Amino acid sequence: MSDLDDAVNDLVIANRILAHEGVVDAFGHVSIRHPHDSKKYLLSRARSPELVAHDDILEFSLASDIVGERSGRPYLERFIHGAIYEANPEIMAVVHSHADEVLPYSISSVPMQPVLHTASECGHHIPVWDIREKFGDTTMLVTNQEQGRDLAHALGKSRVALMRGHGFAAAGLSLNDVLKTSVYLPRNARVLTTAIALGGDITPLSEGEIAARSALGPGGADQTRMIEYWARRAGVGDLLREKKT
Amino acid sequence: MSDLDDAVNDLVIANRILAHEGVVDAFGHVSIRHPHDSKKYLLSRARSPELVAHDDILEFSLASDIVGERSGRPYLERFIHGAIYEANPEIMAVVHSHADEVLPYSISSVPMQPVLHTASECGHHIPVWDIREKFGDTTMLVTNQEQGRDLAHALGKSRVALMRGHGFAAAGLSLNDVLKTSVYLPRNARVLTTAIALGGDITPLSEGEIAARSALGPGGADQTRMIEYWARRAGVGDLLREKKT
Amino acid sequence: MSDLDDAVNDLVIANRILAHEGVVDAFGHVSIRHPHDSKKYLLSRARSPELVAHDDILEFSLASDIVGERSGRPYLERFIHGAIYEANPEIMAVVHSHADEVLPYSISSVPMQPVLHTASECGHHIPVWDIREKFGDTTMLVTNQEQGRDLAHALGKSRVALMRGHGFAAAGLSLNDVLKTSVYLPRNARVLTTAIALGGDITPLSEGEIAARSALGPGGADQTRMIEYWARRAGVGDLLREKKT
Amino acid sequence: MSDLDDAVNDLVIANRILAHEGVVDAFGHVSIRHPHDSKKYLLSRARSPELVAHDDILEFSLASDIVGERSGRPYLERFIHGAIYEANPEIMAVVHSHADEVLPYSISSVPMQPVLHTASECGHHIPVWDIREKFGDTTMLVTNQEQGRDLAHALGKSRVALMRGHGFAAAGLSLNDVLKTSVYLPRNARVLTTAIALGGDITPLSEGEIAARSALGPGGADQTRMIEYWARRAGVGDLLREKKT
Repeated sequence: MSDLDDAVNDLVIANRILAHEGVVDAFGHVSIRHPHDSKKYLLSRARSPELVAHDDILEFSLASDIVGERSGRPYLERFIHGAIYEANPEIMAVVHSHADEVLPYSISSVPMQPVLHTASECGHHIPVWDIREKFGDTTMLVTNQEQGRDLAHALGKSRVALMRGHGFAAAGLSLNDVLKTSVYLPRNARVLTTAIALGGDITPLSEGEIAARSALGPGGADQTRMIEYWARRAGVGDLLREKKT
Repeated sequence: MSDLDDAVNDLVIANRILAHEGVVDAFGHVSIRHPHDSKKYLLSRARSPELVAHDDILEFSLASDIVGERSGRPYLERFIHGAIYEANPEIMAVVHSHADEVLPYSISSVPMQPVLHTASECGHHIPVWDIREKFGDTTMLVTNQEQGRDLAHALGKSRVALMRGHGFAAAGLSLNDVLKTSVYLPRNARVLTTAIALGGDITPLSEGEIAARSALGPGGADQTRMIEYWARRAGVGDLLREKKT
Repeated sequence: MSDLDDAVNDLVIANRILAHEGVVDAFGHVSIRHPHDSKKYLLSRARSPELVAHDDILEFSLASDIVGERSGRPYLERFIHGAIYEANPEIMAVVHSHADEVLPYSISSVPMQPVLHTASECGHHIPVWDIREKFGDTTMLVTNQEQGRDLAHALGKSRVALMRGHGFAAAGLSLNDVLKTSVYLPRNARVLTTAIALGGDITPLSEGEIAARSALGPGGADQTRMIEYWARRAGVGDLLREKKT
Repeated sequence: MSDLDDAVNDLVIANRILAHEGVVDAFGHVSIRHPHDSKKYLLSRARSPELVAHDDILEFSLASDIVGERSGRPYLERFIHGAIYEANPEIMAVVHSHADEVLPYSISSVPMQPVLHTASECGHHIPVWDIREKFGDTTMLVTNQEQGRDLAHALGKSRVALMRGHGFAAAGLSLNDVLKTSVYLPRNARVLTTAIALGGDITPLSEGEIAARSALGPGGADQTRMIEYWARRAGVGDLLREKKT
């Protein structure tokens, strides 16, 4: 198996996991930077993630034009992916989601903050991007590179940006990394929301704890366990392959 | 396949989707205007939507009398459908639902408002219809044309009316359109409810954003993707047919 | 099939429905008055409702002693059932549940009230029974006839009594009737809880609406549809039989 | 079957139950004290609980070193288990979970308290352990015996300790006992959270009720029913064996 085959296979698994864990539904998408060419990325044609199969994966330039052999109707909002890869060479995978639990923090003046150790990747300050600030009244969809770049700029070195009334964009140092962030961000939101409703004082993660967890780096055996579990639950355990860790 | 066959088939799929997505349960229903005769509509006999099959679909006049060849016990509340089709010739499909997430806004003085881009169809002002205002103490069911007309009047040019202590009625420019509204209205409610609980200021969609999204019109490839996904999840993917878009 | 066979069969279906709809879990139970002898009732031996089969159904006196041919370990809390049948000859079926959504109203000074048309059976005033008032510190379980009678007394002519920190007891004019009450009471609780969290004024059902709905009486074709749907969802559609309505 | 075989089998069932009931997910674990040697305990190698099988179960010393014949990569946080067994000889089983419903009480100044009869085991005062108090900024994981002992000290004679921003540790007098506590603690949290949101006064269990329930002791026929139900739901009903009660 080539690295490219592995990347495509991992991306199919990732689509199914995000659908099964409720992070994406009919809409939402996940991409991975091309393993051989950092100026390209891989993303499904416009299908709901639960239905994505190997043949649906297309190659895109960072300007989000289809550049590979395979063709198909692309997602309207693929510019979210291209612009984030363009802005930050460290980022290897991107998720765009509309998860219900996170959305309240995109429309409220109350900020999301990390309160769970499993959500430390999102950092202390989570930017909220509002397309209206620069582009006025739109359909709220990110449909060109200029809008994608504005979002990527708001994201900066953060790993998560909320999109007002729309969802979030998550960026990862690896595909497993962004899957973990995307699954645990909604849970962090749920726990924080409930804690706020309790009405007392709340203790978030400290800066030092976030730094200590960040120093662990992505990957490792814990993420392998996590992916195995999620893939089996999503019915794609048979797609899992032995990885050289 | 005739247009009528297609309409019946689409309506069966719609019943299953609404049941599987939790918009309807034992109760609730969905109809479509007759494709050949704008003075008629199609609706299942009185069955729970998850169980509806092709043979259950009956034809009704806009006065909600059974007029087709097939017969059966009709839903008590079919007048919701007939009266809305009668009042607004643009409307091609109607859903009546008791979704839990929406119901609080039907009994509270706090208004529902659109905060998600996917729920822009419901518009800035969502009317709440209270059967008691005109009809006094009733069983709260819409069981005659006069009550249906009163609801249709409250709905006006809006696409959603809440029904106090009962549920909502949604009207669409197409069947896919009303399915989208019916699935995303509960999510909009959930997100708004949580945002209110957070206690800060809330940013809803702007009038201009609602207008920009409305200008997109119904249908298109995104809705095809959505319906494919929902139909497969609901176990009726085999009923999907190629459509001339 | 005899009436007794039908009653046993209906009770098995009812157990499965309540489990599948999340009204009961490992614990909780449902009974029906004996169709031939109003001084007896039918209830499963001590099994989780999802696992109850025909052979598990035992006959009890109103003092909650096993009186039929079949024997087995009974539920500790069967006295809830016997005492309610003893107190009110109109009652034909009883459910005891720990549903999470209802429990907050059993420990809070904020009263439950009916806000959904589907929950009108619970009436305007829903009593909260606290075993500690008469019996002091106990295990909180209803383990003898005296405790059951105290609960039945608190219930009075109501159809639902909340049990502080424990759950609820629902009484019905028929088995279908008590199933409907038991499924929709948690939904009413959820909707009311959310409406309270919104912070505005709330409009409950009026006394007149409750009376109008009560006049409809139990049973009828709508409940048949409801039971068919729930039974099929619970995987016991094959147990359904044609009834003389 | 030997006692050791039974213990391993019970532990596999427990892993599946906790996964299926939503108490653990990709992460979290459950252990049992070795039936022949109180200085050892049994715990899976580092796998997600839903995937744990008989061959995954390893033997550990109370210092959390692997001591049995079988080997494998252990959970990083196994010290939670070893230290609790070391500190309290009464404890026969331990669960570590990240259940969302409980987590808000680990980061809020509002204390968890028992309000459901089924959650009486957690007692009136539930300690919240914050690893930062003694160890400063860490990854928040319990990765050595010193940290485990600090947690076990905070737990003391209680049966549950919350871990700030992380989850909870539950200790039981038997495996069934700790399963019950672990499943009902999240439910108690959910009910309490909702009751707090209602805004009125709340009645928790009394000290006397907790004592009366505690006097019932662990085990008994009710727990057998509960385990049978949960095991069947989790798809491991075939692993159940007749126990000498």
